[in-house]
Amino acid sequence: MIKAVLSALLVLVAMSSTFGKYIPKSGKRIPETLSRGWGDQLLWAQTYEQALYWSRSRNKPLMVIFHLEDCPHSQALKKVISDNTELQKTLDEDFIVLNLVYETTDKHLSPDGQYVPRILFVDPTMTVRADVTGQYANRMYAYEPSDIKLLMTNLKKAKKLLKSEL
Amino acid sequence: MIKAVLSALLVLVAMSSTFGKYIPKSGKRIPETLSRGWGDQLLWAQTYEQALYWSRSRNKPLMVIFHLEDCPHSQALKKVISDNTELQKTLDEDFIVLNLVYETTDKHLSPDGQYVPRILFVDPTMTVRADVTGQYANRMYAYEPSDIKLLMTNLKKAKKLLKSEL
Repeated sequence: MIKAVLSALLVLVAMSSTFGKYIPKSGKRIPETLSRGWGDQLLWAQTYEQALYWSRSRNKPLMVIFHLEDCPHSQALKKVISDNTELQKTLDEDFIVLNLVYETTDKHLSPDGQYVPRILFVDPTMTVRADVTGQYANRMYAYEPSDIKLLMTNLKKAKKLLKSEL
Repeated sequence: MIKAVLSALLVLVAMSSTFGKYIPKSGKRIPETLSRGWGDQLLWAQTYEQALYWSRSRNKPLMVIFHLEDCPHSQALKKVISDNTELQKTLDEDFIVLNLVYETTDKHLSPDGQYVPRILFVDPTMTVRADVTGQYANRMYAYEPSDIKLLMTNLKKAKKLLKSEL
């Protein structure tokens, strides 16, 4: 009898761990990642505050990508950035990275407007590097997939810290 | 000859898509999720600003969980919250959810200090519900795994909006 109860309990435990998990009415969802497709191997900051803290404490420049999930320009740029091994390696080793689908309250991160995709660099001194720009006069911080070399050059520029010793 | 070049190109393309991806020196990482284990089926906001915007525009209260990845109390609470189907369903259908491993600049989110784990509710009117508390006098917004029923009661309290019509 005790054995039977134990078996029944075991079955119940097994069922609850297998079938008991919450699944939305609309069907099972794929968990959203912090990378949002911009580089699954990078350690992404969650918020601008956290990114700034990491940047200061690790003395590494910060790269902020503003984008939107359903924007085709963002998607195209995401593909070339996530596929570029050299760029991903540089970002992983020398940068703090943050991608946002939402604007922050810091106006310095939108020197010429709140468009997407847009890439801003921030020095560990917490200075937004408005001087590190793309090639479009009307959207200075926008990059097209064909601008990947310029972006790589800009990473090197951003790596030269404003103060070499804090 | 052309065929040979084409074949070589095809092989190169295949290689680059298979082997070309960036892998950190320390080995392949599991992509970090926005859920951070608190409920992979929920749609987590990325930032407090985004969460507030969703809360206002969808007229749903916001639940903010402050936690730390390497805090055993956070981990224990995370397990019971993510395993509780009723709670997950309520959160998915009636709440905006945000989990943060970093403090925000909004002091209203730390009425009695910046400890973890800590759960705060925010009304769609953007009012922090300091009245929705746990059972510990010295850490009013802390929950233990055994407090899951109280947390469920608090969800119901937070669902009663401060203004029923905005």
